This record gives sequence, structure tokens and C-alpha cells, in this order.
Amino acid sequence: MAEAGYDVIGIGNAIVDVLARTDEGFLARHGLQKGVMTLIDTERAQNLYEAMGPGIEISGGSAANTIAGVASLGGRAAYIGKVRNDQLGGVFSHDLRTLGIDYRTRPATFGPPTARCLIFVTPDAQRTMQTYLGVSVELGPADIDEAAVEAAGITYLEGYLFDPPQAKEAFVRAAEVAHARGRKVALTLSDPFCVARHRASFLHLVEHHVDILFANEAEILALYEVKSFPDALARVRGHCEIAALTRSEKGSVIAANSAVHEVKAEPVAKVVDTTGAGDLYAAGVLYGLTRGYELPACGRIGSIAAAEIIGHVGARPETRLADLVAAKLH
Amino acid sequence: MAEAGYDVIGIGNAIVDVLARTDEGFLARHGLQKGVMTLIDTERAQNLYEAMGPGIEISGGSAANTIAGVASLGGRAAYIGKVRNDQLGGVFSHDLRTLGIDYRTRPATFGPPTARCLIFVTPDAQRTMQTYLGVSVELGPADIDEAAVEAAGITYLEGYLFDPPQAKEAFVRAAEVAHARGRKVALTLSDPFCVARHRASFLHLVEHHVDILFANEAEILALYEVKSFPDALARVRGHCEIAALTRSEKGSVIAANSAVHEVKAEPVAKVVDTTGAGDLYAAGVLYGLTRGYELPACGRIGSIAAAEIIGHVGARPETRLADLVAAKLH
Repeated sequence: MAEAGYDVIGIGNAIVDVLARTDEGFLARHGLQKGVMTLIDTERAQNLYEAMGPGIEISGGSAANTIAGVASLGGRAAYIGKVRNDQLGGVFSHDLRTLGIDYRTRPATFGPPTARCLIFVTPDAQRTMQTYLGVSVELGPADIDEAAVEAAGITYLEGYLFDPPQAKEAFVRAAEVAHARGRKVALTLSDPFCVARHRASFLHLVEHHVDILFANEAEILALYEVKSFPDALARVRGHCEIAALTRSEKGSVIAANSAVHEVKAEPVAKVVDTTGAGDLYAAGVLYGLTRGYELPACGRIGSIAAAEIIGHVGARPETRLADLVAAKLH
Repeated sequence: MAEAGYDVIGIGNAIVDVLARTDEGFLARHGLQKGVMTLIDTERAQNLYEAMGPGIEISGGSAANTIAGVASLGGRAAYIGKVRNDQLGGVFSHDLRTLGIDYRTRPATFGPPTARCLIFVTPDAQRTMQTYLGVSVELGPADIDEAAVEAAGITYLEGYLFDPPQAKEAFVRAAEVAHARGRKVALTLSDPFCVARHRASFLHLVEHHVDILFANEAEILALYEVKSFPDALARVRGHCEIAALTRSEKGSVIAANSAVHEVKAEPVAKVVDTTGAGDLYAAGVLYGLTRGYELPACGRIGSIAAAEIIGHVGARPETRLADLVAAKLH
């Protein structure tokens, strides 16, 4: 296997987050299901935005957050995802490029605007996400830069890509290209309802195409339709080389063929906003793997990155993660 | 005097802030003068944005921040300022309207984009601002909704409006309309370099047209070209009915014809970002005045509002100020 030009390339829905603090009553009044991601159309997006309090705009998107984390850790990173050539698309591109990420997907020059996700942060720091996919659904196989995928040690795919139909094709194409070159393919299940929407496809993928799987407890239970975490763990072992399963404040479990490792959550002074916790955990584990760390250390880097992100508003690191890891890991 | 339909109407440059954390070295390398506001053109804005790290976008603009504060305190508020009909203009409008602020200035349908201010926040929580005025310079006398100004108890003007030439005319027109109706006119000097750029005009205004003046120590010294705060205080008394002068952690001084009141700064657990401190202090004082509070209480409300804003990133309140004041004032 030739040396990889990138440590990780991420493929996902390119999204700008619009975050506002809200109370539980708002969620109830607008029929929002707490803690999960719901897809919304233009009209619903407009109505919810009207009702939403003052917001702040921060680049987001699950795989993009992870890739930003990999870069902040010191990794060589690339990203594929579709924005429009509008102001929010410019913001999204800037926020990746300025981290040294190779982001070359051509912005759409017509069609719907750049995707956005309205995120309602309740006082308990939970986030409830309403996603308007906009132009991100136009990502298709033609946008997969095969040379870039071939050049990456790990190709990281977000489960959310299964929602837009064309993106799913792009997703499978990327996995094939990576594997043909002997690279690793990683997947995050993204959301329990996303798993429920595409369960058969996900199962097939996990069993046949995914080397490294990320999921939280609700997602892995949804995938195997089981009720207990040990049952899910037993199912996933053997299918994937590595399964990294997060359990919020209980930490995470990393299962390989040879062993299962329990990883503690990193203490956090104050949990402000949990948006991006899973994305940044994945960044830490992926970075650790590309640098040859043992699995427990990979998990620890994931925990450190996740702890940084939940200590402030937004899903992109505010502190250079490489510095945090250097200070805390050894 | 008829009862006012609004407590305060603000007129200013409508700006979206782009905030990024940076170090002192970045300021030095790019020749940025720390702690002040500098106007930049399109090319410089592009170059600085390229060099800037990942940012977050939050509605800003000095007078708009103040008006958002007045609304958050429970006041009836209106705003005049120019955006383009673009995405950032939509964000700006949303963030005012959702606070119940009457914002009716028609967005420009052509010309430059919505104004933005690149804000570099250093580890000491100081902010260095680089403003690209964009379409906000097109605010002119025709945009002054005279009925709205007549309906407001206080018309609040930001000194930054003296930079774009047309806006200055709009500014003077609004002051005339307000005074003709027996309303009060308030002004913030905005920035010591802005004062230096327009010193003669400001002096004339303060001596003849302004009832309530806001300035920090550097600004009031620049206005009178004096070296000591007591000298500046002696000069301003007699010209304005009320002068509210802020001195960072030393608190503020509110000078009226009859007396001078010293107001303590409110303690803050951690100063994160000083952007908007002066704007929110003004909001508290203005709100207090419209509700008939004594001057020391007005200053206290200003201090409480300023303390909220410097405890987090961005210049718009994250907590409802009315609740904070209810908890702390009595």
C-alpha cells in the first residue's frame, strides 16, 4: 500500500449550523423531538427560523466537524461535500480551508442554497437538530474525487449521506475506490432515526464494506434491533475490524477482533452544548489510528476532543486539539 | 409630549460580526491596531478573511447591539440600518425581529453585500475590529422613518455613522425630527479614532444637539483633546444633560447637571470577549432612563448588561437581561 497523502478524507452533507438557546416549551410547541436530527423542507425551515430566537452561525456538518477535528489534531485532512456559491457556502469553505483542509468540491452555481441545520440548545445542553439539506443533496458520484480518496489512509463517511439519494451512490463509489486501493473505510451511523430509515442498507454495508464503525448506544441498538448494549456489542464484533461505541458520560467502548477496551469520558467543567460530541470523538479515534496509537490511546484522544467541543457552543474546536492532546495524553 | 410608542430607536451601521480567536502575533503580522475599529475595503477584507481562522457569525453593529439589549431588558425598541437582500442580511434581520424589535428599513436589492466586521479576539479577551461597511453606507436621509423617530422616547445614534457620508445626513435629520417632537437624542462616540476622524462635527453635535452622551475614557479624552479624565468630565458637564462615561473594570461615571455618580463594574467570573461591552452598558442606561429610574440605578442596569455580554463570545445577550436585572437590581 502506497503512503497516504491524507490521513483522513471525509464525505458528508456540507452544512452551516444556526444555533439558538431555547427552552423545553419551545420544543413541545413546535413538535420537535428532542436530541435527534429531523429533516425539514423549505417551508418548515422558514417557519421554524421565524419562530427561533437570535442565532449564531457556525460551520457544521457531521463529517466536516470530524475532519476539522482531525486537522486541529495535526492530521492531514480532506473533505468532499456540496455547498452553493452563496454567503453561507463561502463561510463553510473558509472555515475548512483555513484549517489547512483540502476542500475542493466545486460549489453549485444554481439550485437551492447551502444547507443549514437549525439547532435548538436546551438548558440541559442537549441539542435538537432540524436540517434543511438545500444543495447538499446534489452531491453525486461525479463529485467524488477518486484520486483524493485513493490518497487517503481512511475514507470517513457519515450515515446522514443515506438521506439524499444521489449521495448514497457517491458514498458507495467512494468505499469501492478506497478498498480497491487497500485503504480503510470508516462509517458513523449518525442518528438512530437515520439508522431506522436505512437499516437494511446500513446492515449490508457494516457487514461487507466497513472497517471502522462509529455509533452511539441508541444507534447500535437500532442497527441490530436489540435491547441491550452487550447484545449489540456481540453482534458488531466480527463484522468490523474496529467498532467504537460511545455512551455519553459513561465513556466509550472500542471493540476489535482481539479485545474490547473501555475508555473513560474526559471530565468537563461545564457541559454547555453537546453538538458535535460524537463527531469530535470520531476525529480523535481516527487521528490516533492513522498515527499508529493503540486502541485505548485512540479512545482517549477521542474523549479529549469530545470534552473540548461540549465545553462551548458549536461543533468546531475553539482550542487547538493538538495542544490539548499533548498536554493531557502523556 | 405625547406618550412614546417606542422606548428607544437606534440608528447605525447594520453589521454581521465574524469572530475568530487569534493570538497577538497575528495582529502584528497583519498590522492590526489592537482594541480599536478600523475601516477596510473589499480587497483588504478578502485578504484578512483568508488569513483569519475559522469564524462564527453573529449579528452585530454597535447601535443594533444596544437596541437588542434594550429589547432583552423588556423595552420597546426599533432600529434603522441598511442591509442587502442577501443571506447575511437575512440573518441580521432575523436576529432583530425575533427579539420583537421593529426593524423596517428596506434591504437594498443591488450594490455591495451586507456589512461585516472581522473581529479578532485575543487571549486577553480584547477585540480588534476590521469593518467592511458594504451596503450599510447606502443608508441615507430617505431611510429615516420620521414617524418612527417621532414615536420614540429616545433616538440613539452611533458615532460610526459619521464614517459613511450619506449616513451622517441621515443622522442629523433624525436628531432634528426627534428634537422637534420634544424627544431626547443620545449619541455614543463609538471609538477614539472615529472621534479623531470627525472631531469638529462631534464637538458641534455634543454642544448643540445631544442630550445623552455615551463614551469611554479614551473617546472622551479624544473629543476634548485633554489628558485627564477629570478634565474631560469638567468639559462635558454643561453641554449634555447626561454624560455616561465608561472606564472598563473601574466602572462608570454618570454626570448630570446636578451631580456626578460613580457606578461600580459588575463582577464577572471570566471575561471571555469584550465585544459589545459599551453597547450593552448603553442599553442598560437607556432602558433605565425610559423607565424613570434614578441615574445610579440606570448605571447599575448598564453594568449588569455589560457583565453578561463579556462573559461569552459575541455582542448580543445570551440570557434574557430582564431576568438578570430582576435578580440582581433589588
